[in-house]
Amino acid sequence: MGSFFGNKVRISIFGESHGEGIGVVIDGLPAGEKIDFDELYAQMQRRSPGRDKTATPRKEADMPEILSGMVGDTLTGSPLCAVIRNTNTRSGDYGNILNSPRPAHSDYAAFVKYGGHNDIRGGGHFSGRLTANIVFAGAVARQILKRKGIDIAAHIYSIGNVSDTPFAPVGIPTDLVEKLNKSSFALVDESVESKMREAVETVRKNGDSIGGVVECIVQGVPAGFGDPMFGGVENIISSAVFGVPAVKGIEFGSGFSGSAMTGSQNNDEFYYDENGIVRTRTNNHGGALGGITSGMPIIFRAAMKPTPSISMEQKTVDLQTKENTVLSIKGRHDPCIVPRAVPVIESAAAIAVINLM
Amino acid sequence: MGSFFGNKVRISIFGESHGEGIGVVIDGLPAGEKIDFDELYAQMQRRSPGRDKTATPRKEADMPEILSGMVGDTLTGSPLCAVIRNTNTRSGDYGNILNSPRPAHSDYAAFVKYGGHNDIRGGGHFSGRLTANIVFAGAVARQILKRKGIDIAAHIYSIGNVSDTPFAPVGIPTDLVEKLNKSSFALVDESVESKMREAVETVRKNGDSIGGVVECIVQGVPAGFGDPMFGGVENIISSAVFGVPAVKGIEFGSGFSGSAMTGSQNNDEFYYDENGIVRTRTNNHGGALGGITSGMPIIFRAAMKPTPSISMEQKTVDLQTKENTVLSIKGRHDPCIVPRAVPVIESAAAIAVINLM
Amino acid sequence: MGSFFGNKVRISIFGESHGEGIGVVIDGLPAGEKIDFDELYAQMQRRSPGRDKTATPRKEADMPEILSGMVGDTLTGSPLCAVIRNTNTRSGDYGNILNSPRPAHSDYAAFVKYGGHNDIRGGGHFSGRLTANIVFAGAVARQILKRKGIDIAAHIYSIGNVSDTPFAPVGIPTDLVEKLNKSSFALVDESVESKMREAVETVRKNGDSIGGVVECIVQGVPAGFGDPMFGGVENIISSAVFGVPAVKGIEFGSGFSGSAMTGSQNNDEFYYDENGIVRTRTNNHGGALGGITSGMPIIFRAAMKPTPSISMEQKTVDLQTKENTVLSIKGRHDPCIVPRAVPVIESAAAIAVINLM
Amino acid sequence: MGSFFGNKVRISIFGESHGEGIGVVIDGLPAGEKIDFDELYAQMQRRSPGRDKTATPRKEADMPEILSGMVGDTLTGSPLCAVIRNTNTRSGDYGNILNSPRPAHSDYAAFVKYGGHNDIRGGGHFSGRLTANIVFAGAVARQILKRKGIDIAAHIYSIGNVSDTPFAPVGIPTDLVEKLNKSSFALVDESVESKMREAVETVRKNGDSIGGVVECIVQGVPAGFGDPMFGGVENIISSAVFGVPAVKGIEFGSGFSGSAMTGSQNNDEFYYDENGIVRTRTNNHGGALGGITSGMPIIFRAAMKPTPSISMEQKTVDLQTKENTVLSIKGRHDPCIVPRAVPVIESAAAIAVINLM
Repeated sequence: MGSFFGNKVRISIFGESHGEGIGVVIDGLPAGEKIDFDELYAQMQRRSPGRDKTATPRKEADMPEILSGMVGDTLTGSPLCAVIRNTNTRSGDYGNILNSPRPAHSDYAAFVKYGGHNDIRGGGHFSGRLTANIVFAGAVARQILKRKGIDIAAHIYSIGNVSDTPFAPVGIPTDLVEKLNKSSFALVDESVESKMREAVETVRKNGDSIGGVVECIVQGVPAGFGDPMFGGVENIISSAVFGVPAVKGIEFGSGFSGSAMTGSQNNDEFYYDENGIVRTRTNNHGGALGGITSGMPIIFRAAMKPTPSISMEQKTVDLQTKENTVLSIKGRHDPCIVPRAVPVIESAAAIAVINLM
Repeated sequence: MGSFFGNKVRISIFGESHGEGIGVVIDGLPAGEKIDFDELYAQMQRRSPGRDKTATPRKEADMPEILSGMVGDTLTGSPLCAVIRNTNTRSGDYGNILNSPRPAHSDYAAFVKYGGHNDIRGGGHFSGRLTANIVFAGAVARQILKRKGIDIAAHIYSIGNVSDTPFAPVGIPTDLVEKLNKSSFALVDESVESKMREAVETVRKNGDSIGGVVECIVQGVPAGFGDPMFGGVENIISSAVFGVPAVKGIEFGSGFSGSAMTGSQNNDEFYYDENGIVRTRTNNHGGALGGITSGMPIIFRAAMKPTPSISMEQKTVDLQTKENTVLSIKGRHDPCIVPRAVPVIESAAAIAVINLM
Repeated sequence: MGSFFGNKVRISIFGESHGEGIGVVIDGLPAGEKIDFDELYAQMQRRSPGRDKTATPRKEADMPEILSGMVGDTLTGSPLCAVIRNTNTRSGDYGNILNSPRPAHSDYAAFVKYGGHNDIRGGGHFSGRLTANIVFAGAVARQILKRKGIDIAAHIYSIGNVSDTPFAPVGIPTDLVEKLNKSSFALVDESVESKMREAVETVRKNGDSIGGVVECIVQGVPAGFGDPMFGGVENIISSAVFGVPAVKGIEFGSGFSGSAMTGSQNNDEFYYDENGIVRTRTNNHGGALGGITSGMPIIFRAAMKPTPSISMEQKTVDLQTKENTVLSIKGRHDPCIVPRAVPVIESAAAIAVINLM
Repeated sequence: MGSFFGNKVRISIFGESHGEGIGVVIDGLPAGEKIDFDELYAQMQRRSPGRDKTATPRKEADMPEILSGMVGDTLTGSPLCAVIRNTNTRSGDYGNILNSPRPAHSDYAAFVKYGGHNDIRGGGHFSGRLTANIVFAGAVARQILKRKGIDIAAHIYSIGNVSDTPFAPVGIPTDLVEKLNKSSFALVDESVESKMREAVETVRKNGDSIGGVVECIVQGVPAGFGDPMFGGVENIISSAVFGVPAVKGIEFGSGFSGSAMTGSQNNDEFYYDENGIVRTRTNNHGGALGGITSGMPIIFRAAMKPTPSISMEQKTVDLQTKENTVLSIKGRHDPCIVPRAVPVIESAAAIAVINLM
């Protein structure tokens, strides 16, 4: 039982890739807040498969239906439920995956956990499709946070060995936030796009896949939020972000590289800025000290493993015959989910932050 | 409110560095389990300051008193409470830290959160001393887990730029587990100890500090534990591990380096081993697929920032005068907490894992 | 934020009376359990308005659609989501209730809580219609519990001053369980039905309403479940049962009347029965000692206030003009919800008990 | 695992009657609040055994030690831990209760739950002594609530068949609150004290015991607190109050008697009072509508069973020989705990209400 998140704003996610539909219940949202659905749908489009080149968001089959929690465009304060129908639930070519778990997928672990009763079609409840619910919840949360002066933006920090320019840890300009929030291939430096696409195209030709890193910034959260020990910024955000499939690592501020530094290098000195606000000149702490926000941007990077779905032949087991076997799944695979993961990571950050405040 | 952890075995931590005492309540432990106190105290000694060269655990002032939850050496099933008295609560030289928050410490964030009412002496509730409670809880959990065949071990993966030999991701031998579990400077390859101590000594002389990485392995957890999305292995372990002060990053399996790989490199192929158990030949997934244990060892690395306490002069603010100022705290600081953090990380893993099962 | 229940099997309820639909997400159900939908629909029919005289359950508009969590008739272990569409959402004659809160309804309290943004049509999220979700979740839970030998049955203990024969506290026969589980006017002694209907008819003619008491028994739960203090049988069941609108009191075993007894009268003596099972000859403790099940039936009574909706003129306030005013709501009201509340109370008990075990 | 309570202010209780000590950790209290210890100790005295005739609170062995969460008399915002030592832990005459569970006690249920490993001496974790922790937490909560204008008072509504004058449901005067809050035999009408003591004395002479009802009022909570369905006033208060041993029933407002009324009798009509506040002229709803506070006093009654400890011979089982047997426990028993339960019920209400706001 783990498909829920949060203590103040509670999110409960349901659905399986090839069942009737997927959706999310969000309880604890403030009554009276208005939701801009065009903006919300635009966020959902950023995550949609095959939308990468599309400039105009289109409202179509994959859009959520609101069942409760709103009158017109206004939150009622009661649980908000959104449902997305699964329109195309033909199972396609899953080859022998019912018996032969795909390497690096949840198939085998889920088979053991659920005794083979889980819905394996399309990955079932473990499908990347379920992240549409995270984006929905995140898009709602972000609109509420934005009215409090909080911006969330992420970019493709790297794909394989190709890297974008990192965020300035002490904060990024508003127009960059806006550009990234609209992008389906979010980069600080757009000149690296071609190299990244090249790296993806190379693995795609081989039927292979590739991973990457997403960097995310949350700016505008005042100092003093978060709780010590297990209720801190890093605990809550990491809990949410590891809910995004394929994330295998997270670091805040200077993170792993900070662990090789000295204290005098890594410590961020305080000063009063021109508005009398306490700030730090560097942001190696990534916005959290003792788990509590410092008023500086919260900044983190999430490592995403390469998509486990590849077309190459792989060794696996046959759970029926109990013998070693070989698995080959033909068909179109998404060779790199990192670009589409950007709005999902932003959304995971949003549902974490709305629970911190 | 965040000083508690867990849903099945619930841990509630209290105390401030210079208050009367610190302690922990553990609710949900199985009745009838026996606790070996010599072993428990040995774990607590590994974390104790200044014990590094000590071979024999000594039972002294810093040892916990059991207030409830046991009759003799057996758990009753009721909440277990252990208290450690603060015997030396003289405040020492905190200079002007009441007004001038120390860079990279929780001082400023806590000042804002608690309106200046928090107990700032020695870091109060944010003190590293509180990790003694984590080690206590972890030591209890580890004894129970060990009877189920689950071993937990960690080592100093690196200090600054000096690295130990990494763990074999598919599992480490029992005698290495035992060696590490007794060590106060836990290394796979003991020959790097002198280089690491040298690196620490160098920063110490400068009044500076240095960070590092701890690598931890949990082996023996069967496949099928953990829940999808927000209740998975990575979510629960990261929630616990970020409860250890100074941790700023965590990665599972191939983690950040895996994000630069292709799927065909990173995917772990399944096979039946000689006992008919499904295993993988590599362990880039770090023991969790879709958040659920695969039966392979859970392996993760935690990045620890350099201790923020340094003797060098640092810029900060004066919260009373609202002016920029300079802070200098003389006295003995621990220039590297990574060796002592090893049993704390193991313990955080233990309280996470006992909640997964 | 309170529309969820449970720690082991977590239930999240959403919907508003006149929104698009209502529904429930149930997370933590055991994979592989089969659900008998005819039986499930039959339970939902027992709660449906206007079904009281109907013998055969009909599958119609008001039946839930399963969006996730099942393949065929089998639970997958992923969250089960069921949605019921609101087909008739015309608001009808709510007179001036938008401004004038109805006495004994949630209108005024909700107006203050949600700043007037809540969906007031038909009571919104507070509507009795939402209990369909409780019955759905309860019907699923009951099928799983039944396979463990646990039966749940309730009856109309009283309406106004007309009482049914109470349950034998030490247990009721299986055929009575079965009779009650199928009944839409559940009585031990059917001869009191006419008197009860007469009492209801009398108030109906006056445009008034009447309350009653539901008695519920849960038999077959072995000894040893439930936790001390705040996690006990009474805490968990009362938490669930007070989730049913109109419940204003609950008592276990001898309850309020036991408080007037002496210990020698109220204490239940233990004995070994012919199967070597420890039992008590009386059941004044109602199946729970120290919050933990004793192995005897759990028995409780829930007091339900008269339906607040009446056709008589009532004094209230006008929240716009801030003046006292008079409210009159014509139309058909259900003068007594107690018969239909029987399956709701059983269901609340079921979702509590499945969380105790 | 159930010895904790609350979501906003979390209370974790530990201890066994004859272990080293008992105590409570309270997390989530607001930093900066001052605690009046004389007042706090006075509340704890009201619960203490054998204090009934004592006017002046005495600070003695049974008083709590504060381990954390305070500097001087001010809350730091970190978890507050209070410990009470068990000074007299001689086990006394427990006769053969280790093998022979006492009727109406938790002995048998706990034996099954904990496999015989629980600390049975003095009732262990189930001892009434543990309610000292509830009173401590409640006394802290009440001081904070009082500064928000919220008063909590309770009285002995009845012992056996002797009744006090009930509270006026629409509110009681401040001087009555104050009188009751200081009393160790709390009555509205003190003239019934002698009759009640007589009733107790009668059962005492027989080695028997007697139960009663406590009525509690919480006044000053504004309208709009509490959540729908499972997070409402009745759910939260009942969860807390059933944490008090011996409570077997609870009713709010008109409760069970309301269930025999008609809607026109039971509905509370609204009006604007002279201060422009919406109130009701009657308070059959007991301060909660749809689970949300109405602004009227919260009023409830808790039924307490007679103390299960009696000196009379009782039938029970021998868990070793598996035979029926007879139990006789000589010694001094408290024949009626209702007077001492008054501050415990008030405190349970306080920890519930502080979690609602």
